[in-house]
Amino acid sequence: MKNILSFLPLLLGLSVSGWAQRPPAIRSPEVHPDHRVTFRYFSRNAKSVTLQGEFLSAPAAMTQDTSGIWSFTVPPVTPDVYPYSFSVDSVQIADPNNTYIFANERFKRSIVDVPGDKPLVHSLQNVPHGKISYRYYPSAMLQRTRNVLIYTPPGYDPRSKTKYPVLYLIHGGSDTEETWTKVGRAHWIADNLIAQGKAKPMIIVMPYGNVRPSPMGDFTKELVTDLIPFVEANYSVRTDSRNRAIAGFSVGGGQTLNIGLTNPDKFAYVCAFAPYTATEEFRNNFADWSPNAEQFNRQLKLFTISVGTDDFLYEPVKQNIANFQSKKINLKPIIVSGGHTWMNCKLYLAQTLPQLFQ
Amino acid sequence: MKNILSFLPLLLGLSVSGWAQRPPAIRSPEVHPDHRVTFRYFSRNAKSVTLQGEFLSAPAAMTQDTSGIWSFTVPPVTPDVYPYSFSVDSVQIADPNNTYIFANERFKRSIVDVPGDKPLVHSLQNVPHGKISYRYYPSAMLQRTRNVLIYTPPGYDPRSKTKYPVLYLIHGGSDTEETWTKVGRAHWIADNLIAQGKAKPMIIVMPYGNVRPSPMGDFTKELVTDLIPFVEANYSVRTDSRNRAIAGFSVGGGQTLNIGLTNPDKFAYVCAFAPYTATEEFRNNFADWSPNAEQFNRQLKLFTISVGTDDFLYEPVKQNIANFQSKKINLKPIIVSGGHTWMNCKLYLAQTLPQLFQ
Repeated sequence: MKNILSFLPLLLGLSVSGWAQRPPAIRSPEVHPDHRVTFRYFSRNAKSVTLQGEFLSAPAAMTQDTSGIWSFTVPPVTPDVYPYSFSVDSVQIADPNNTYIFANERFKRSIVDVPGDKPLVHSLQNVPHGKISYRYYPSAMLQRTRNVLIYTPPGYDPRSKTKYPVLYLIHGGSDTEETWTKVGRAHWIADNLIAQGKAKPMIIVMPYGNVRPSPMGDFTKELVTDLIPFVEANYSVRTDSRNRAIAGFSVGGGQTLNIGLTNPDKFAYVCAFAPYTATEEFRNNFADWSPNAEQFNRQLKLFTISVGTDDFLYEPVKQNIANFQSKKINLKPIIVSGGHTWMNCKLYLAQTLPQLFQ
Repeated sequence: MKNILSFLPLLLGLSVSGWAQRPPAIRSPEVHPDHRVTFRYFSRNAKSVTLQGEFLSAPAAMTQDTSGIWSFTVPPVTPDVYPYSFSVDSVQIADPNNTYIFANERFKRSIVDVPGDKPLVHSLQNVPHGKISYRYYPSAMLQRTRNVLIYTPPGYDPRSKTKYPVLYLIHGGSDTEETWTKVGRAHWIADNLIAQGKAKPMIIVMPYGNVRPSPMGDFTKELVTDLIPFVEANYSVRTDSRNRAIAGFSVGGGQTLNIGLTNPDKFAYVCAFAPYTATEEFRNNFADWSPNAEQFNRQLKLFTISVGTDDFLYEPVKQNIANFQSKKINLKPIIVSGGHTWMNCKLYLAQTLPQLFQ
């Protein structure tokens, strides 16, 4: 072991001359049994290092010991999965010693999982596990090969006569197709709720929604014209609207409303999590919307809009809820505490899965 | 679009007060058609920003424009996939504007893909695609649930009578189970070589090898006692040694030698890429090794050790090659240019796949 450790700097592809500057291997984050968490960062030369985290209301100054290791221990935090980062002399960075990264296009943050005393719904538990497959599909509309992550439940067998319902699950703005698994733990939430008999075994399709140049207009069409046909040609799935759901967070929540409510013959379940709707497409779709409410309510088995009271979108989301209700659309608002966070996203998903395909 | 862009800072979960400090969306890296690459980083306050990359022989100073964007354009580089990072006032960081991250436990670096004028063997091409599945398996030996990534080739069907050969493929020290796909592009290399008829359709199993506290001793046993049985119970695979291969890079190359050569009844193909062997386990296994060379050579269909002449392990690897050859073991050395890099790893894998299971 000693040999390996002393040699590790070289194994990182550094030249021998770079070896001397190599930081020591340190443990960060260290989650304590009482839910305190210690964060550490090595720098001899930094003048200030602060910790930002969604478990903190303000950045915390880390302190340096004589060996150059900066650290800060946060008091017990509510068990959950939190994003955090360091600011080193004002440069925001992910924790170099933590493999778990927030999958995002605009920032680098790390993830810390503070486990509960009892296993939480998003934890890896000793239950049968589904699998996530990284797939590629040809998008005729966008004229490119596109990524998609597909969760199949435990025991899924493409050749069996069992046909599964499908949830299309969309990330937020600047997230990627990996954010719902890497940060949102969608696969473990599904594994656990299926094992408990609370959710139906289902397939969950997680596409990449930040299609350029028009995430709203292009992606919403492409999901219907290219992604759904790919899924239905390659998986053992039911293809009627009662076995197809759509859900998404933030920009993906807006996409969910645009896709789901304009295609009620295709999606009987439409679940928007803190939807961002200040877009041209949403105005085009809904400003003068006058649906046949009776027919619409027959087609949709479930239409929910979830939001936290601390979410910066709380007011516009409340307004959207009121607008839809004024049109006699059956809509189930789900108002909880919390902000525009992935902690809330996990909660929304865990609340939603048991209501689908019942 | 304008609405979305101006709103994006809020969608990142920042408070309104944090919005003012939000950097603008900038494009980095920008790969030009002539293989030059422009890297950009936004900071008004940094005093110096440098670029480190495996396409550079020394760090390059980036220059700041009046809007606060630091940039540097490297002259045309040989098309390949390269790790790089920025140093901002001596803080090493991944590129905040690049989603592609080097999966690693000890550093954060980004990845830039410089495409060739003709598609390279590691590029996403318009061929049938296999899939990567993120799986969990119970490890009785390590008493935990473990991650593993499993590539299945295009057209793989678990219920068909076709049974596939299996390659166990191990990452380097401080890498993760994702490094062979995220950096090494193992799945695209396999897709392309299978499409060209150069490699046999095969399953590729990519476990996590940095088992604590003993990556060598514990992992090498566990692969045989727990991982192989999981794969063989859950995939349509051949189970004889002629249809089982093992390969790995650096620390994983050492693990490959330890696992493969002590189990010649289980692996007929043993391929070590720049193996790191300065470990107690390697000494225990091979210092006084006196195999029955004739029997051993009958059992092994292929035993290769690959290394680059600029690899810092070149000398010890050459010594190992000589030692094995002195014992009359059939060993095919593959000596190429290049260093201890993932560019070379991709090359080693692309050279290896066509030689397996033939």
